[in-house]
Amino acid sequence: MTKANVDSLDLSLQSKKDNTRRNFFRKTVLYSASALACANILRPVKLKADDLAITEQAKWGIKLGDKVDKYPYGIPSPYEHNNIRRVHDLLSSGDRYATVSMSPLHEQEGIITPNGLFFSRSHGGTAHIDPSKYRLMIHGLVKKPLVLTLDELKRYPSESKIYFIECPANGSTGWRGPQFNNLQFIKGMMSCAEWTGVRLKTILDDLGLKASAKWMLAEGSDNSEMARTIPIEKALDDAMIVWGQNGEALRPEQGYPVRLLLPGWEGNLNVKWLKRLEFSKKPWHSKEETSKYTMLQANGKGINFFWPMEVNSIITSPCPEKPWKNLKKGDLVEISGIAWSGRGTIKAVDISLDGGKNWTEVSLKGLVLPKAWTRFSYIIKWDAKEKIIISRAIDDSGHIQPSIDKLIQNVGVEGIYHRNPIVGWQVKSNGEVNNVHIRS
Amino acid sequence: MTKANVDSLDLSLQSKKDNTRRNFFRKTVLYSASALACANILRPVKLKADDLAITEQAKWGIKLGDKVDKYPYGIPSPYEHNNIRRVHDLLSSGDRYATVSMSPLHEQEGIITPNGLFFSRSHGGTAHIDPSKYRLMIHGLVKKPLVLTLDELKRYPSESKIYFIECPANGSTGWRGPQFNNLQFIKGMMSCAEWTGVRLKTILDDLGLKASAKWMLAEGSDNSEMARTIPIEKALDDAMIVWGQNGEALRPEQGYPVRLLLPGWEGNLNVKWLKRLEFSKKPWHSKEETSKYTMLQANGKGINFFWPMEVNSIITSPCPEKPWKNLKKGDLVEISGIAWSGRGTIKAVDISLDGGKNWTEVSLKGLVLPKAWTRFSYIIKWDAKEKIIISRAIDDSGHIQPSIDKLIQNVGVEGIYHRNPIVGWQVKSNGEVNNVHIRS
Repeated sequence: MTKANVDSLDLSLQSKKDNTRRNFFRKTVLYSASALACANILRPVKLKADDLAITEQAKWGIKLGDKVDKYPYGIPSPYEHNNIRRVHDLLSSGDRYATVSMSPLHEQEGIITPNGLFFSRSHGGTAHIDPSKYRLMIHGLVKKPLVLTLDELKRYPSESKIYFIECPANGSTGWRGPQFNNLQFIKGMMSCAEWTGVRLKTILDDLGLKASAKWMLAEGSDNSEMARTIPIEKALDDAMIVWGQNGEALRPEQGYPVRLLLPGWEGNLNVKWLKRLEFSKKPWHSKEETSKYTMLQANGKGINFFWPMEVNSIITSPCPEKPWKNLKKGDLVEISGIAWSGRGTIKAVDISLDGGKNWTEVSLKGLVLPKAWTRFSYIIKWDAKEKIIISRAIDDSGHIQPSIDKLIQNVGVEGIYHRNPIVGWQVKSNGEVNNVHIRS
Repeated sequence: MTKANVDSLDLSLQSKKDNTRRNFFRKTVLYSASALACANILRPVKLKADDLAITEQAKWGIKLGDKVDKYPYGIPSPYEHNNIRRVHDLLSSGDRYATVSMSPLHEQEGIITPNGLFFSRSHGGTAHIDPSKYRLMIHGLVKKPLVLTLDELKRYPSESKIYFIECPANGSTGWRGPQFNNLQFIKGMMSCAEWTGVRLKTILDDLGLKASAKWMLAEGSDNSEMARTIPIEKALDDAMIVWGQNGEALRPEQGYPVRLLLPGWEGNLNVKWLKRLEFSKKPWHSKEETSKYTMLQANGKGINFFWPMEVNSIITSPCPEKPWKNLKKGDLVEISGIAWSGRGTIKAVDISLDGGKNWTEVSLKGLVLPKAWTRFSYIIKWDAKEKIIISRAIDDSGHIQPSIDKLIQNVGVEGIYHRNPIVGWQVKSNGEVNNVHIRS
């Protein structure tokens, strides 16, 4: 299925349910050049005088370009200066040490977030650790407690896996009503990368975990001394100690040189600048799991430990920052977005063009991996009529994204964590896109 | 199999052939903590006085760290200043416009190369193109010739795929005998990324390719006006026009804003700063496919068009830049590396510890995708004896990496392109690693 999945993204962009449409489109896209020309992915364009000049040497080609060794470590084109992470006063009250810098999802494609754009949440600023001074202590209920240097840690067999990390507050901004008219501030507290490190279970097998160990404390060495308690089942499942991110060392704001990675679980649990793992019979109830990061319910009580990030999805094209420009009636246009679930693998994504009255199952495209971003896609013929486009994801654990009203029934209106309702966009007849909330 | 592949990397790191060993190791690594402790992945470490201080606030944690918004576009830790691309006088004769900057493979893990470290080859320096001025002309034997803006190009349904790109001269440095004692200068003319763009076939279906079109010219708008001829079969197979690289816009040195991507084929064919595709009945014989990039054979004649990159592999850990430090006899240690093939998917990798007398099939780990880097891994018990470690890869097209002598029989000793012989390292008893060539 690796092959099948890779191949299946090629052009099978249509719904599995809506067979008539799908077959029409498949035929159109795959086989019939003339039909597609009629369908106008691109309208015929007459060559203009200045277009013809394309066969001449371009202005930027007349001179030699930059020397190849100008940037031993490369940087983006200066024309991409707006493609950056952003913070917002509303979420940081002017304090730039304990806040979150959000990822520009509207500019991203595929499932890899480049390291320079990976969202960043810190509780006491970004620590800068000299890797030669780095130590990781593993102690408590293990037979062979020890302190590891970075070189010693890297002696363990490594694995590389693609996982998302998401702040549990992602989507909390205005989830009960439109607040930001902007994808970046609505869903930008998440990113996805290929992580390299060692499975925690491999280390624990080596050190000898005692049978009485039921909980693990993970503690960071940054200014906030971020500390969280993890149940032993997760530590022995897919938890990793990672030092690599998209093929290079972790970035400072991701915990350089070492962080904990708990695939699919709340971002704050993936403790950065990791200095200590302690195993114990009971949980710790640290400040960050009592004063923060508890899961408020409708009855006003909070659940102390609530870890996995819910099944979720968002349409990233179009979005307020990326409206449909210059579309004419009859043009084909792609709706695409990201689905993800901390409980497993995305199984299906539905799209509605009328605010939730009718749904169509759309195609997943590209790699479909557990606890990783999964891209979905649906091609429509633009009718130049205003519509409300929303998406809902289903994962292989059986969870489905709830409506806002259903979520409010379960968790009330006060909390800000684990809010994964169906949200979407109003697309106006001129292609402009706005944030609207769908109550159903 | 997406799932199976992902799961199978977990700890099944041993040979499929060598069942006795594999079962021993599997049991060791997977099930028996005490056996593993005996096997010494890590030797027991006594807590030292300064280790105990780890429970106190670290020096870098006493003060607040950097503000979260200090780098809207993030950069690596200053401690990683040596993890950079490098050029070499021997390969560029002091000219830094038409040369290659090689990727630090010894520092990379997983299959994604971060954009800042992606190898860069240029024939006239890095062009800087204003995306609003960018145009792509598609003409010749198509029914609907046109000139596209970048926005128009991005209207096509996009795909994201992980592919390597490799210069055909990769491995040419000293392939007949040790020249560099350094992985970066031996194999660093390649990288692997997730690319986003449109399948060329989708565009051609839209524009209506005429049946008489047999060849495509791809021309760049940089100072070298790089131009190459591509057979129509490849254009209609997996060729893409890409604008995205690891989730963001292409980097300038990768052809911002648009390059051609011909998965698995010579790097220079993946024309950067792409301005024109022309379709014709006959090939062009451009300067870069006559004076350069021809495939010299043993009889002294060159093959004009020779496109796919051969099946290949290299051990990246250990390597000269990454020796085995502080290993003691009896310690377990991982040998790992990269395999790739421009003809398809890696099927198997063998490792020899004695310069090619005996071979063991080792495990592939992580994602195994067509025309993408594939990681392999083998754990050995260190016996503190000098050894020659080499790897050979086999792909699903039936190709296998040849020995240097076998390759010389086929292609002679003068050429520098498409040299994919089995190469390897001498590991000395003190863990030092040197480049040695294996004649067999």
